[in-house]
This record gives sequence, C-alpha cells and structure tokens, in this order.
Amino acid sequence: MPRMSESRENTIVTAARLLQRQGYAATGLTQILEESGAPKGSFYFHFPGGKEQLGAEAVALAGSEMNAIIGAVLARHADPAKAVVALGKTWSSWLAGSDYTEGCPITTVALEQSSQSSILRQACAVVFGSWHRQLRDHFVAAGHAPVRAGALARLVLCSFEGAFVIARSERSTASFSETARLLAEVVAVGV
Amino acid sequence: MPRMSESRENTIVTAARLLQRQGYAATGLTQILEESGAPKGSFYFHFPGGKEQLGAEAVALAGSEMNAIIGAVLARHADPAKAVVALGKTWSSWLAGSDYTEGCPITTVALEQSSQSSILRQACAVVFGSWHRQLRDHFVAAGHAPVRAGALARLVLCSFEGAFVIARSERSTASFSETARLLAEVVAVGV
Repeated sequence: MPRMSESRENTIVTAARLLQRQGYAATGLTQILEESGAPKGSFYFHFPGGKEQLGAEAVALAGSEMNAIIGAVLARHADPAKAVVALGKTWSSWLAGSDYTEGCPITTVALEQSSQSSILRQACAVVFGSWHRQLRDHFVAAGHAPVRAGALARLVLCSFEGAFVIARSERSTASFSETARLLAEVVAVGV
Repeated sequence: MPRMSESRENTIVTAARLLQRQGYAATGLTQILEESGAPKGSFYFHFPGGKEQLGAEAVALAGSEMNAIIGAVLARHADPAKAVVALGKTWSSWLAGSDYTEGCPITTVALEQSSQSSILRQACAVVFGSWHRQLRDHFVAAGHAPVRAGALARLVLCSFEGAFVIARSERSTASFSETARLLAEVVAVGV
C-alpha cells in the first residue's frame, strides 16, 4: 500500500494528466481515483476542498512542470529570437509526439472553468503569470526595456497558447512553425 | 408552437451560446433543449447524429458569426496595422462586456473535443481555416506577399486565440491591448 503522501502525489499527477487531455468537466473523481490507484476513502482527507482543490493543485503542478521546460529552453538560448524558435519546436514536437492529444496542460481548464470556479480561474492565472515572468525576465536580460519585454512576453505566450489550440484542431504543427518564425523577428534585440 | 425549422434553428443558436460559455462536456442535451424551448420529441428528427451533430452545427454557426464580425472590422480598416488593433479592441470589449464569460466561441470545444470527436475537431478546424483565410486575403490586398500574408494571418489568429484564454483567466484585457500593439508593428506593410 502506498504511503499517504505518495497516494496524494499520485492523485495530483493523474489529475494533471487527465485535465490536460480532456478538461475538468469531463474528468470525474472516479476516473482520477481509478487511474491513480489512490484509495477512495482518503480522498477528502487529502483534499478537503474536493475536486476543485485537487484541480487547482493539478494546475499548479502542470504549471511548474512547464516552467521547468521553459527554463531549460531559455537556458540554452540567450538570444530571444533563437529562444522562441526553440520553444515553438519543443512544444510542437511534444504535441505531435502525443498524436495531438497533449496540448497546453492548463488551457482547457482555464477556458471551461474561468466563469465557473474562481479557485480554478485564479490557479490558471497564477500559472500564466509565472510563465510570462520567466519570458519577460529573459527578454530583459537580453537587452529589451522592461515594459517592451513584458509586452513581448505576452505576445509570445498568447501566440503559443493559440497555436496549441489550432494545432490540435488541425493536427498540424504549422501554427507553431509559422508563428515562431515571425515571433523571432519581433523579439530580436535591436529591432 | 414554433415551426420545425425555427425550433431547429433555436436549438443550434442555444447550443452555440452554451458551448462558448461552458464547453461541450459540461453542456447536456437537457440544458440545451430546456433553454431553447425546443420540443424534446423532435430532437433526433432534426439531428440524427445526436449531440455531436448539433455541436458541429453550433460550431459552424459560431464560426460564420465571427467571420461576419471579422469582415466588418476589416472592411473599415484597409491598413493591416489599424485592422489588428481594431480586432483586438472589438474582441476585448466583447469579452469584458460579458464579464469575461464569452471568449472565442469555439476554443473550448476545440480543446476538449480534438482528441475525442473527429467530427467536432474537423468542424473547429474548418472554422479556424475560414478566419485565417479572411485575414490572409486582407493582408494580401494590403500588399503583403501571399506566403508572408498567410504566416501573418496565422500569428494574428494564434495571438488573439491565446489572448482570449489568458484574458478570461486574468479578468483583464491587457493580453489584447499589448498583443495588438505588437501585432500592428509586425503586420504593417513595408516593414
């Protein structure tokens, strides 16, 4: 039998994966518990706020995993233009590699739940904010003025968020490659 | 009692509105029929493909309504830079005016259903394609080379799709205004 903390962790990891694939509304507690192998009995002990609390923790986990991926890509490319092309490649390979099932881990939840649950809405906003800050700081370090770096980071984030949506729908990575090429022009230092 | 065709039409309009607000998974047939006032008995006569067919028709309707909005904005602004700023303003006013409940009408469905239903996935891809073509043709008419116009249209579409997601989550129109300002630089003719 898994340790308490391990079963709590498994539940969050499983929830994060299911939320990415099918959103919050279609993901029932029963499915999460079955796939995670976590005992039903301790669910409300671990998550007194129920499915909503679990959802918010799953969003935060997915957000920090993505932050690690963004951080690794940015660490390899000090040049913003190269960094955005590499980010586009990373995400489009990931998406295509999952046969277009795994897009941005939190977008579906953000859309479905923004008007339904302020807890989930805010959990998503915190995650988007953390991705944005990481991009902005990278652009500042590369020489962009802070205000412009913030706007550039927003453009990059919005573009790739949208690319995830359209790429899944089209089953094509064209949205990533074309978008990344143009973004590279915009974020280039000295333009 | 409404005419047959009228009740069919009402059902599609109601479904489109609910899909925009809460996605496909959370929208049950019962809610659609109750809110549309359409008789339950004739549902499968009108929609032999069931909820999936209704969903695809609702996506197509939402797509053509948005095409009309995009067309109206583009008709007022031949200059691509002014056109994208106006599009950003139109969409952000619309979103803020609905208290951040009404984002892109098809994104939630596209995300939730791309891996679940090829009928709904393709309905969304057709709609994204029609918006893309309209933007691309406008950029070509303004003097951009066709291939670049296509890429620019993709960047604009992806950016605003992403802005809808992040704006709803943040309850702020900053994603639209900052993104539109930068997009205006990129799409300007002669850059």
